[in-house]
Amino acid sequence: GALGGLGLALGLWRRQVALAAAREDEEEKELWQRFMAPPVSGLRELRRRRRELRSRMELLIMETQAEMCRALAALDPGASFAVDSWERKEGGGGISCVLQDGDVFEKAGVNVSVVSGLLSEEAARQMRSRGKSLKAKDGKLPFCAMGVSSVIHPKNPHVPTMHFNYRYFEIEEADGTKQWWFGGGTDLTPTYLNEEDAVHFHKTLKEACDKHDVKLYPKFKKWCDDYFYIKHRGERRGIGGIFFDDMDSPSKEEVFQFVKSCAKAVVPCYIPIVKKHCHDSFTPEEKLWQQLRRGRYVEFNLVYDRGTKFGLLTPGSRIESILMSLPLTARWEYMHNPPESSKEAEILEVLRNPKDWVH
Amino acid sequence: GALGGLGLALGLWRRQVALAAAREDEEEKELWQRFMAPPVSGLRELRRRRRELRSRMELLIMETQAEMCRALAALDPGASFAVDSWERKEGGGGISCVLQDGDVFEKAGVNVSVVSGLLSEEAARQMRSRGKSLKAKDGKLPFCAMGVSSVIHPKNPHVPTMHFNYRYFEIEEADGTKQWWFGGGTDLTPTYLNEEDAVHFHKTLKEACDKHDVKLYPKFKKWCDDYFYIKHRGERRGIGGIFFDDMDSPSKEEVFQFVKSCAKAVVPCYIPIVKKHCHDSFTPEEKLWQQLRRGRYVEFNLVYDRGTKFGLLTPGSRIESILMSLPLTARWEYMHNPPESSKEAEILEVLRNPKDWVH
Repeated sequence: GALGGLGLALGLWRRQVALAAAREDEEEKELWQRFMAPPVSGLRELRRRRRELRSRMELLIMETQAEMCRALAALDPGASFAVDSWERKEGGGGISCVLQDGDVFEKAGVNVSVVSGLLSEEAARQMRSRGKSLKAKDGKLPFCAMGVSSVIHPKNPHVPTMHFNYRYFEIEEADGTKQWWFGGGTDLTPTYLNEEDAVHFHKTLKEACDKHDVKLYPKFKKWCDDYFYIKHRGERRGIGGIFFDDMDSPSKEEVFQFVKSCAKAVVPCYIPIVKKHCHDSFTPEEKLWQQLRRGRYVEFNLVYDRGTKFGLLTPGSRIESILMSLPLTARWEYMHNPPESSKEAEILEVLRNPKDWVH
Repeated sequence: GALGGLGLALGLWRRQVALAAAREDEEEKELWQRFMAPPVSGLRELRRRRRELRSRMELLIMETQAEMCRALAALDPGASFAVDSWERKEGGGGISCVLQDGDVFEKAGVNVSVVSGLLSEEAARQMRSRGKSLKAKDGKLPFCAMGVSSVIHPKNPHVPTMHFNYRYFEIEEADGTKQWWFGGGTDLTPTYLNEEDAVHFHKTLKEACDKHDVKLYPKFKKWCDDYFYIKHRGERRGIGGIFFDDMDSPSKEEVFQFVKSCAKAVVPCYIPIVKKHCHDSFTPEEKLWQQLRRGRYVEFNLVYDRGTKFGLLTPGSRIESILMSLPLTARWEYMHNPPESSKEAEILEVLRNPKDWVH
């Protein structure tokens, strides 16, 4: 009767719950199988604390890495990614994926790192661009930092270099307060200016930002132009994109959703541009100009980039993963000045005076 | 009689004085004609204050530049030095000589600069490696800085890169006290180790030092190994040489004579090594290793070198002359590790653990 019916219903419900869990397991397994390597924190641990933001962020950076690597590999079928999982003695580790000397890409690196441990007050101060003071217990602050970062240097001078980085920090103060913030950005460094590409790139980023707050794109576009400035040359590294740091409002969930939108925009920002130009013909002179621009890229990264400098000075950091961002080859010529009205002068003008690409 | 004889003697003496002065003029003219360009301070001004140390130093750096350029040009007859005289808005200027893309040299730069003006207390502090405090009037210190610096990157991977720099500073404190000091050094960066060359190079430097004080070479050899350290790689840039800074004893004249000996040793240190190897045959693999080592050179210069960093941050400095030190081409490969017992591993071992080449 009724009891039997109830028992049956309960059984069905139980089966449905079990099926749903199994389906979720399957989906999760499928997702994780697409990763380039097992996540640093381990599948079991990530699962155990699946509701915590740092777990969700770790999954997002793993997904972003995998999406980007798959998209790049599809365009360069002759080459393949070397995948290195590495551990950091002081806590955590990372996964570095590098494709080198392919047909389309000179050097493409997509790196994930998830590190934790204790920071000195000085190091903690340096980590935040606004330099908020943090109260440490015995001068040390427990921290957790994770991020995905990537630099893609293509062979063809008509395909621009692209960089992105999305990161999350947590620091615990002496009284147990947890400070957290996100940072990141995506930016483009063309050898020659192609307005259509510049507009596509910025428009894709703007759309990702606008879903969250229309004030974000203009603010982060300007921040990007200001950040990637090679002061001694009076030039920006590239034609920009977005850049932000110390982002901790309106709420952890909302900032995470914003960062997720940015991370999901990386492939649609860039891959269509690569597809469009990777078979363009080019001259030796165009290749040479590319090499000179690569030299400027090296100058920015080694002299100004906060991430690189922080990495080089941090004990236990993995140098090969930090310097993965450097191009395979670069060139410095004494007093190279492109002639007026040349294509080389055209891009220099934009690097000296950044433009608005979308309104 | 006697008076007529005296008149004659006086006339003869006068003529001899005039002849001596004319001969001195001729010698001076000859010397100055050998310079790569007119000195920054002007011939008349240098002549007027010919007894002052800063004038003698300016002549020494001009001579050193000319000697080096002539010696290099003789080995690379197809190429020639571009000579640029430049002025610094804030006071002084320089002469940059660059030979680029020759048959023997990929990029050879020899630069003289003679600058003066006012330094902030902060900048003055940074100039002295020991960071002596200087008392400024209204926060500004009148200063004069001059030097010759050079980096030679040859094409053939069996010819090492060489760098030297000799410099002199004067700073006037609020009470009129003049602080002065010399700095400098000469060092070698081979792609492959050649013990005979290493010994020749160090021996020539040691002999130059020993003429003044046998304690100098061991002290400055170690300083060189310590200074040219690429911390994030755990490697030195090269096999060293000598390096010193803040040298202000035993006396201005004695330090100048020591610096003069070092400057005079530059050509005999290096040119025989170039002559010996510039026609050596080499493989594409050896060229590639050279390019990777060039990448390390760039890393040191942009991340650690005090001179480069100071130059990049100084308003009004001439960027092209500062970055002249960078190679024409460089390469970065992800995770490049030479096989054990290879020639590449041999030089790495010496870069990781510096050796004594002369005793």
